[in-house]
Amino acid sequence: MFQAQTYQQRRHDLAALISSGLIFLPSNREASMNCTDNTYPFRQDSNFRYFAGHNIPDLALTIDGATGESRLWGDDINLDHVVWMGEQPSVAELAKNIGAKRGGTQAELSTLLKKHSGDVRFLPPYRAERETFIKEHLGAAAGADEGLIRAVIALRSVKSAEELEQMDIAVKTSMKMHAAAAAHAAPGQLEAEVAGLLEGIAISGNGRLSYPAIVTRNGHVLHNHYHGNILKKGDLLLIDAGAEATSGYAGDITRTFAVGADMTAKQQDVYDIVQKALTDCTAALRPGITYQSIHLDAGRIIASGLKDLGLMKGNVDEAVAAGAHALFMPHGLGHMIGLDVHDMEDLGEDLVGYDDKMKRSAQFGTKNLRLGKELQAGYALTVEPGIYFIPALIDRWAADGTCSDFINFSALEGYRDFGGIRLEDDVVVTNTGHRVLG
Amino acid sequence: MFQAQTYQQRRHDLAALISSGLIFLPSNREASMNCTDNTYPFRQDSNFRYFAGHNIPDLALTIDGATGESRLWGDDINLDHVVWMGEQPSVAELAKNIGAKRGGTQAELSTLLKKHSGDVRFLPPYRAERETFIKEHLGAAAGADEGLIRAVIALRSVKSAEELEQMDIAVKTSMKMHAAAAAHAAPGQLEAEVAGLLEGIAISGNGRLSYPAIVTRNGHVLHNHYHGNILKKGDLLLIDAGAEATSGYAGDITRTFAVGADMTAKQQDVYDIVQKALTDCTAALRPGITYQSIHLDAGRIIASGLKDLGLMKGNVDEAVAAGAHALFMPHGLGHMIGLDVHDMEDLGEDLVGYDDKMKRSAQFGTKNLRLGKELQAGYALTVEPGIYFIPALIDRWAADGTCSDFINFSALEGYRDFGGIRLEDDVVVTNTGHRVLG
Repeated sequence: MFQAQTYQQRRHDLAALISSGLIFLPSNREASMNCTDNTYPFRQDSNFRYFAGHNIPDLALTIDGATGESRLWGDDINLDHVVWMGEQPSVAELAKNIGAKRGGTQAELSTLLKKHSGDVRFLPPYRAERETFIKEHLGAAAGADEGLIRAVIALRSVKSAEELEQMDIAVKTSMKMHAAAAAHAAPGQLEAEVAGLLEGIAISGNGRLSYPAIVTRNGHVLHNHYHGNILKKGDLLLIDAGAEATSGYAGDITRTFAVGADMTAKQQDVYDIVQKALTDCTAALRPGITYQSIHLDAGRIIASGLKDLGLMKGNVDEAVAAGAHALFMPHGLGHMIGLDVHDMEDLGEDLVGYDDKMKRSAQFGTKNLRLGKELQAGYALTVEPGIYFIPALIDRWAADGTCSDFINFSALEGYRDFGGIRLEDDVVVTNTGHRVLG
Repeated sequence: MFQAQTYQQRRHDLAALISSGLIFLPSNREASMNCTDNTYPFRQDSNFRYFAGHNIPDLALTIDGATGESRLWGDDINLDHVVWMGEQPSVAELAKNIGAKRGGTQAELSTLLKKHSGDVRFLPPYRAERETFIKEHLGAAAGADEGLIRAVIALRSVKSAEELEQMDIAVKTSMKMHAAAAAHAAPGQLEAEVAGLLEGIAISGNGRLSYPAIVTRNGHVLHNHYHGNILKKGDLLLIDAGAEATSGYAGDITRTFAVGADMTAKQQDVYDIVQKALTDCTAALRPGITYQSIHLDAGRIIASGLKDLGLMKGNVDEAVAAGAHALFMPHGLGHMIGLDVHDMEDLGEDLVGYDDKMKRSAQFGTKNLRLGKELQAGYALTVEPGIYFIPALIDRWAADGTCSDFINFSALEGYRDFGGIRLEDDVVVTNTGHRVLG
């Protein structure tokens, strides 16, 4: 946790942007796994954590939009709970630690919310229990407040020095995970063995993973959480895994290497293109440039490299304009990162990543870019180019003749079992350019 | 997964016990962590898994109570999903693998449920999204079916040989976790470092933890998930952690040891009492005996041992009848274990652990016993005696004079910083006695 002043300042800034109504920011509750009391590891709501700091369930913060007065609500524990949970600070102490007042019990909060239901501003719920709570207290028709969403995004998008310090910690732990994986992955192991090694390191850092790890010899399956394959010598192993620091800030790192072997020339050729995309796109980061333009830079580097390998053809700029590169990289180049790995995704991707000047593309591939708008100093984001050979997608494009002016479908036959390569770093935009985190 | 026949037989047995209505057993959905799409590791609903096998979200099984006809419902994936998730078997194939018919899409299931809402039998929901689904489809007043609950409990309580094989795997991985912790825990480490080591091993076994690990130098705090303390030489480290096998079956093992040192005589004396309780209570397990009586045996062993140490006094049987031992062991001796660590807790603790002949005690301590009823061959359960010195509880009892005929409160002064010791094994009741799993 940061000093009380940090949270006070954030709440002050938020109230200044909102100026009326009652801002309601609940903590998360414990999430049931296979029965009510066997829960997943607790994950705090990132907005609550940003404004109220505490990594504790069943609390809520309210901020009076007009006065900025902040109150923390929750129930103190009794002796029965002490036996199971140990001594815990009172809600009054928790409130004091973040420069807020104690509000009252959960029951008192319920009464307050129902009484002022028309005046309560809240963020979009992403867990069913919060949705139910909001309907019960604020009415079935109550909707999240777009002004509040925009204000929170404005504040959370620009990372402070103390936040970046925490992100460096998260990325350093993430790099340690990848180093251990590279050192220990060997033919004959289950993918799960590598996944356990990685996740164990994140937990040993007194945090957890910031998202489910991808550890796969089938890197062309983009969100592959299956870890049941046995690694063979020379397999390309794609690992996309990041740690969450104790403070809640996320790392998000991807590396790809050949298991127990040097890469073949064929693998290395593709790897070098991805590496060039990572290096050149990172170098281009600075305030004032749009991230969509950097995404398209990556497309051009990939198209140009694949043309050199004989897998694409024609004019590179025209190929990228037509979206031909997206056969090989159907995802976006990156996203904001902070207290969430996809920072503030709960608040709406378009409001986070786009604005009046930059609208989301409708084109296959680029439409998946989460961050398109102009960069500002303090934005933290991922740069994660990749090249994948996805048989089902290749077959569909070949059958439909999609982008056939730019793709050498016959040359792709030899790549059907190649898999995929992705490389990813986390970067902060500075006043003068950028800094790679970690 | 087991053979199709296993699931067919289970569904046949269930229908035979129910004989009418439409049994609705939905799978779990992905559980949102900090936004809709950043999810916790998928955990299947144990009842769905028992009757339908598949470890896949967004499916549902229906069983016609009268005919036993089983249908599997869900949506097949399209090319967009293939890019992200890889090729997946169709719902028709999934149905065939478990000897069921394909039902239809999720939309078709919705229609069916609404049409037959009065006739649908379901189990108690433990996640908010399922509760919402049930209210929307079956009406706000619809309640879980007690006949179905009792039938599922009857089937799941008695473990088959193939289930016990999976439980042995889970317990073996759990023992490996504890062996690694004992070998590597050292003064100067964070508790989290040990927790990461343990959890990494569970994940490397292509499973996960079956419940959040307890790894604490404050073993007297019974459900302590804080891992931020630094271990000191001679600290009693209590580790309660178990693996879930790939098949979903749980292990649940507790060990306590002194960090980087032999136990002191004071620690060893208490340890020996707990060890005797574990050994003697395990030896007493056989069909026909009630688990509450074994729980009270543990109470007598603990009271007798603590009397020898001068911490308790008076007649041991009277002390246990008065509940005096519960100052030191406020929890129950154990619970059923299977596809859930607290097996079938979602179906109701009293229906699982008690019956007409054995009602739950209202006494402090014994009231927390999850399993009290007569044991049958095939029941798998934990035996987990412990002795804890809980300052807040000692102070309350001393102030109230609770059980002052049996407790030497003055002698407890020297134990306020002792912590706690628990030992736990997983055991199956056999026709002739018992077998320790793993």
